[in-house]
Amino acid sequence: MQDLKQYIEDNKERFLNELFELIRIPSISSKADHKDEMYRCAELWKKFLLESGADKAVVMETEGNPVTYGEKIMDPSYPTVLVYGHYDVQPAEPLELWNSPPFEPEIRDGKIYARGADDDKGQGFMHTKAFEYLVKTNQLKCNVKFLIEGEEEVGSPNLPKFCEDNKALLKSDVILVSDTGMIAPDVPTITTGLRGLCYWQVEVTGPNRDLHSGLFGGAVANPINVLAKMITQMVDENGHITVPGFYDDVIKVSDEERALMAKAPYSEEEYKSALDVEELDGEKGFSTNERTGIRPSFDVCGIWGGYQGEGAKTVLPSKAFAKISSRLVPDQDHKKIAELFCKHFESIAPKSVKVKVEHLHGGQAYGCPIDLPAYQAADKALETVFGKRPVPVRSGGSIPIISTFEEILGVKSVLMGFGLEADAIHSPNENFPLEQFFNGIESIPYFYQYYAELGKK
Amino acid sequence: MQDLKQYIEDNKERFLNELFELIRIPSISSKADHKDEMYRCAELWKKFLLESGADKAVVMETEGNPVTYGEKIMDPSYPTVLVYGHYDVQPAEPLELWNSPPFEPEIRDGKIYARGADDDKGQGFMHTKAFEYLVKTNQLKCNVKFLIEGEEEVGSPNLPKFCEDNKALLKSDVILVSDTGMIAPDVPTITTGLRGLCYWQVEVTGPNRDLHSGLFGGAVANPINVLAKMITQMVDENGHITVPGFYDDVIKVSDEERALMAKAPYSEEEYKSALDVEELDGEKGFSTNERTGIRPSFDVCGIWGGYQGEGAKTVLPSKAFAKISSRLVPDQDHKKIAELFCKHFESIAPKSVKVKVEHLHGGQAYGCPIDLPAYQAADKALETVFGKRPVPVRSGGSIPIISTFEEILGVKSVLMGFGLEADAIHSPNENFPLEQFFNGIESIPYFYQYYAELGKK
Repeated sequence: MQDLKQYIEDNKERFLNELFELIRIPSISSKADHKDEMYRCAELWKKFLLESGADKAVVMETEGNPVTYGEKIMDPSYPTVLVYGHYDVQPAEPLELWNSPPFEPEIRDGKIYARGADDDKGQGFMHTKAFEYLVKTNQLKCNVKFLIEGEEEVGSPNLPKFCEDNKALLKSDVILVSDTGMIAPDVPTITTGLRGLCYWQVEVTGPNRDLHSGLFGGAVANPINVLAKMITQMVDENGHITVPGFYDDVIKVSDEERALMAKAPYSEEEYKSALDVEELDGEKGFSTNERTGIRPSFDVCGIWGGYQGEGAKTVLPSKAFAKISSRLVPDQDHKKIAELFCKHFESIAPKSVKVKVEHLHGGQAYGCPIDLPAYQAADKALETVFGKRPVPVRSGGSIPIISTFEEILGVKSVLMGFGLEADAIHSPNENFPLEQFFNGIESIPYFYQYYAELGKK
Repeated sequence: MQDLKQYIEDNKERFLNELFELIRIPSISSKADHKDEMYRCAELWKKFLLESGADKAVVMETEGNPVTYGEKIMDPSYPTVLVYGHYDVQPAEPLELWNSPPFEPEIRDGKIYARGADDDKGQGFMHTKAFEYLVKTNQLKCNVKFLIEGEEEVGSPNLPKFCEDNKALLKSDVILVSDTGMIAPDVPTITTGLRGLCYWQVEVTGPNRDLHSGLFGGAVANPINVLAKMITQMVDENGHITVPGFYDDVIKVSDEERALMAKAPYSEEEYKSALDVEELDGEKGFSTNERTGIRPSFDVCGIWGGYQGEGAKTVLPSKAFAKISSRLVPDQDHKKIAELFCKHFESIAPKSVKVKVEHLHGGQAYGCPIDLPAYQAADKALETVFGKRPVPVRSGGSIPIISTFEEILGVKSVLMGFGLEADAIHSPNENFPLEQFFNGIESIPYFYQYYAELGKK
């Protein structure tokens, strides 16, 4: 890359000033009265896209906040990259915990302090500036499209329909996203997996009313005891979930990827001490990172029933409830798992109780194979800038829109994030180290360069 | 018994009028501003004891409501019977559900409707009038003492100390109590057992804060899952409680008593249908009545932890709680069981969590052997009046003062009650059938007659 470092050096002040313009607009999607700010922010990003070299950039309506779309089509024979980001941010409250005003960016100790500095104005804007460099220096060998939405922080409720309605516009070979993080400043990271989710509420009914535990205890099934037993039966001694068919579609992660994943720095002692637990627990045969990354889980998120007040009440309650969730991994289908669980849970209920299972919601897991050309381009790009190969990380959490992209657009995403744990996204004093911001701008052009080769049709 | 039926017939109107005088005093022990009524009621009962033939009757102070004590000592060589009852009643609320004012007794359809009509003014007063008959007709061959307290409905907080302080005064060979019920009007019943109780609260702590179930689920022990498993481990597949030593002191009830108990009318279909359950569940090898009467139980009375609101929250909670109780049977010692449980529950906790067990309270079980002379006297008395042998019933509930009497005074109680399920004690429209009231007055003199023989020293 010709003069890449120099270009960044020469323009860094302007890059920051432009980013600060975006940050100063309090585009908080959860606040209904911030509609004007959402439009102002979408328009400003459009302006920056055009100034950076987009052929076309527009602010497009949805049922909710608008989407900024931009593109530069170089040559139909080139691979097309769709850059996804979001201009909306979390609320800044509690305001009193901020050391500087959340929407007045301030640089202290080499970090930008502001709401959205990292998530996702900072990370999203890196792509705009990397794009600018490639256009201005005539080195862009891909077609590039930008999709910058305004509702990520409220669950992207209108983006699926937007994708359905604009499939041709969004046609691309890969989606590139910087909305995740790195394990540490010196450990480049690519998120290769996101777990899916199934969430149920169960209700176990014993007798038709609360009973006196003395008069009936021992003769009538207690729905709390029964629920406890049913929950216990769902996971065996090896930490395996016992629902028949549950693992049928779980992808076996390759030894190569597991070996790369194992390179992530991890100290069990530090992990345990941060949580104040003496021992970890999970599925036999897998490491902690694998347990949260490539394996499904079974957690009771809430439970209640009977007397929960002060002191003692000798009741044999009529009902007990639980909220239960499973995190899923590729290629488990959340709808299929939801049904398997419902059937199985009902099937293990003893005749002494009635059981109701309600499926509350779910989402697909996402997996990015490390032999995907775009993954390999990202891998090489990060190695070029950081001097070491990135670690593929499977996150235990979910970013539902990523699997939605795959479902609707049929396109994989590469999650090349530059955030750090210490960035405090969603919290007071959110920040983004200048080094990460500029390393990001430096890495992205290499991605395009390598992808132009590896992703050739 | 000479002219017993005739005596009752000749005096029934007066008996009722006297009972109604007691009932009209709203001696509600749970209401602090009813102190005057408590004294008025205690004094009135004292007056009735004296009029009925007691040599001595006094109202004695306690830290709480006063106790009415009366006695007639016939001959030191006679056996001594201590009659226990209580003049305090439950609150009458909700008042709007009463068909007649709760403290204005009314006879409808052959039943006395009023708060306290059964529990325990009606049942307690039967003893005063049976005593009157024996005294007036010179047929009393026992010494009789009356202990009528005013705090039974609030757990008799001051009676243990009263007993400690008045051991000599209360010296007796048996305690006779009518504060329980009959299975049906034509099934005379003697309650031969009361279960004891142990009650604990347990707290299971996993990580030191609520965690994101996606990022940590599968790698960190979930305290709800763990609590469910620990609860499940407490009872095995045969319904046996697994705490080591738990059954060591459980008395094996004789085959004779089990055969008598089995005479209690019982329809499993009706029992299930009243509770709306398809199947009963309990310890293998025992009937429903045995499961609640002669065997201990293990019930979770309450459970809570994590998210319990609307919809879904994907949390791996830090803590889970449960309220757990065991009903105990003779000769289990509630203090010993409390400790055994605490130790065992802590011992089965995996290292991935911290467990805290708090013993909230407990009480001893009570058992009355059916070969006790006083039991046999009651058995014969009821057979004489009702024309069939009474059924010995072990109640699953607890009347803590009965085991306290045994502990402090060293005397067994015979629970010869005449209440019926339909009497609605503690509820609106409490009532007591005149037939039960008069049958009670008729039965008690036979008890004294037979006990004078069987209980001879």
